[in-house]
Amino acid sequence: MNPVELISRAVQLAGRGLYTTMPNPRVGCVITDADGNVLGEGWHERAGEPHAEINALRAAGDKARGATVVVTLEPCSHTGKTGPCAQALIEAGVSRVIFGMEDPNPEVAGRGLQMLKGAGIEVEGPVLEEECRALNPGFIKRMTLGLPLVRCKTAVSLDGRTGMASGESKWITGPAARADVQLLRARSCAVVTGVETVLHDNPCMNVRADEMPLPAEQAENVAEVQPLRVIVDSKLRTRTRSFILQEPGGVLICTLASAPEEKRAALAAAGAEVIVLPEREGRVDLGALLQELARRQCNEVLVESGATLAGAFMYGAHVDEIISYIAPKLLGSSGRPMFELPIAKMGSVLPITITDVRAVGHDWRITASTDIER
Amino acid sequence: MNPVELISRAVQLAGRGLYTTMPNPRVGCVITDADGNVLGEGWHERAGEPHAEINALRAAGDKARGATVVVTLEPCSHTGKTGPCAQALIEAGVSRVIFGMEDPNPEVAGRGLQMLKGAGIEVEGPVLEEECRALNPGFIKRMTLGLPLVRCKTAVSLDGRTGMASGESKWITGPAARADVQLLRARSCAVVTGVETVLHDNPCMNVRADEMPLPAEQAENVAEVQPLRVIVDSKLRTRTRSFILQEPGGVLICTLASAPEEKRAALAAAGAEVIVLPEREGRVDLGALLQELARRQCNEVLVESGATLAGAFMYGAHVDEIISYIAPKLLGSSGRPMFELPIAKMGSVLPITITDVRAVGHDWRITASTDIER
Repeated sequence: MNPVELISRAVQLAGRGLYTTMPNPRVGCVITDADGNVLGEGWHERAGEPHAEINALRAAGDKARGATVVVTLEPCSHTGKTGPCAQALIEAGVSRVIFGMEDPNPEVAGRGLQMLKGAGIEVEGPVLEEECRALNPGFIKRMTLGLPLVRCKTAVSLDGRTGMASGESKWITGPAARADVQLLRARSCAVVTGVETVLHDNPCMNVRADEMPLPAEQAENVAEVQPLRVIVDSKLRTRTRSFILQEPGGVLICTLASAPEEKRAALAAAGAEVIVLPEREGRVDLGALLQELARRQCNEVLVESGATLAGAFMYGAHVDEIISYIAPKLLGSSGRPMFELPIAKMGSVLPITITDVRAVGHDWRITASTDIER
Repeated sequence: MNPVELISRAVQLAGRGLYTTMPNPRVGCVITDADGNVLGEGWHERAGEPHAEINALRAAGDKARGATVVVTLEPCSHTGKTGPCAQALIEAGVSRVIFGMEDPNPEVAGRGLQMLKGAGIEVEGPVLEEECRALNPGFIKRMTLGLPLVRCKTAVSLDGRTGMASGESKWITGPAARADVQLLRARSCAVVTGVETVLHDNPCMNVRADEMPLPAEQAENVAEVQPLRVIVDSKLRTRTRSFILQEPGGVLICTLASAPEEKRAALAAAGAEVIVLPEREGRVDLGALLQELARRQCNEVLVESGATLAGAFMYGAHVDEIISYIAPKLLGSSGRPMFELPIAKMGSVLPITITDVRAVGHDWRITASTDIER
């Protein structure tokens, strides 16, 4: 295998950590001899466990001496929960490192590569940088901008409606789309919803092993890491007996200083963490919420809410990606909109870029990136 | 080639008449020897000109004697603008006929086949019936139900809006989608719009050779057959100087008996045909309009209108197919709906079946069949 093929393989390995590495990045590593024969492979699976390079070094054993290490992300130079990978590679006596992308943290970018070069190791890269970056869009955004990547999921009829005017809305899309949403939740560090959705639909918002389209063992493994479930609730109307408070995994309720103190205590007693965030036009400041989530090391955040909160995220230019499941039905013109979004003139419409369209059961999923300028 | 391959080839040939055979069906024909070697091919190109079988017989010449004729539609038994094809095949001395589908007109179905059998010709079929039927959905519906096939074209943002609340709406989709609409018009016998669209956008609604994504010569040929342009205008508010009245091709204005007589004369003088149709809830009865179009031999009708008229077509269960171009933008929740369609309960939503999704430039086209029970 040549460097591009090897990085491709490392990207594939990194993908095995898609649902479990958070808050760490997904990283894959292949160790080969000079002829490109694979000596060992590894990937990062879970925070606190060894990084991809360490797993690959263990798989290669003594053969790592003089070998080539191919890794999707610059080896780390810092001592976190595990030792610095760059140091481990030097100690293993590897002769060459091919990397996919530099560390996105501007404060440490290049340091791992410098350590390797300083030890006389030949360093080559970035190779297939775009593919390597695509593994960790949220981690990269958090490292570079101090904000998580925000995905907004919507489920609409062909005529763009998320429910009836009455609020009736369950099961617009089919089981395959709902299973797909489980995967979106599973790769997210946090799932954000609004109090209206909690009051109206009483959802659990969790990751459920038996609903994920993954092999059973992997699904069980994935469901062990629940995303933080976040409720935007400026007046603290969330009921203490809501289902969302009864499932494993943390619940963070974001409210305003004006919310009733006794309700705060009751929700805390019911297991939620309640925090006060700054106000913006009478509501929780969503920018401040996202900063808070980044501070909590959230890489990818999934917004699953009604049209009002989703529209506020859109209107505030907080959304990076829209995932829209389109169901084969018409809900009619009195139905609820996809986003509650006040736009009056054609000159003010929000341009987006459709990046992927595919069938999911009888529904279709459109992925679009917002063209937010930062 | 075997019978299925030969019918496939005949279907392909029939497709060459997609934009020009109306009000006739699109038909293709291949003549082969006993070993499946092609001796001649033909297709129907334009009403008044020879049918597919005649063109294929001409191409095969004397070799047709004893040959096999493969044709997408049962050869006709009646004398229309041209003689009956079944008779011509008998006279040419062919020994075997493989057909794709029977004549959809219940009054003559099977007669052509009987004529052939009566002359000692071996008859086989239907073969690849679904593909053969797909060539002529409108012709088949008109022959069997006395109504044209109705397609409703919409152009919406990802959030399902066709324009701003102000009415501002032009250029939601890009040039590729607009070129694609030219092909939809070109295959239609009639294009229906509402007076609001005529007053507001002043469209031509015609087929324009230089905008069709076809080779120039073919495009010129196609543009020679303009669809009938139909305006639903219950109060006759169409302006006599509208662009739609200035382009080549017929314009039919459908109004109510209550419309002002002098305006009727003025529009007739401006070149339009004005007819009075029955009223239904204060508006032109769309069912009656479609019956009238069927009477005028319209096979496929394209509705290109605003949300009100399109919604009325949907609400009346008149639409067979929705063609929705989705543009990569968000128009916001005050924008106009795809269909003005009053539905209050989830139990009343209209199910549709998405049959095709594809990229058209930067836009996406979703084709859906309505699940109308007839």
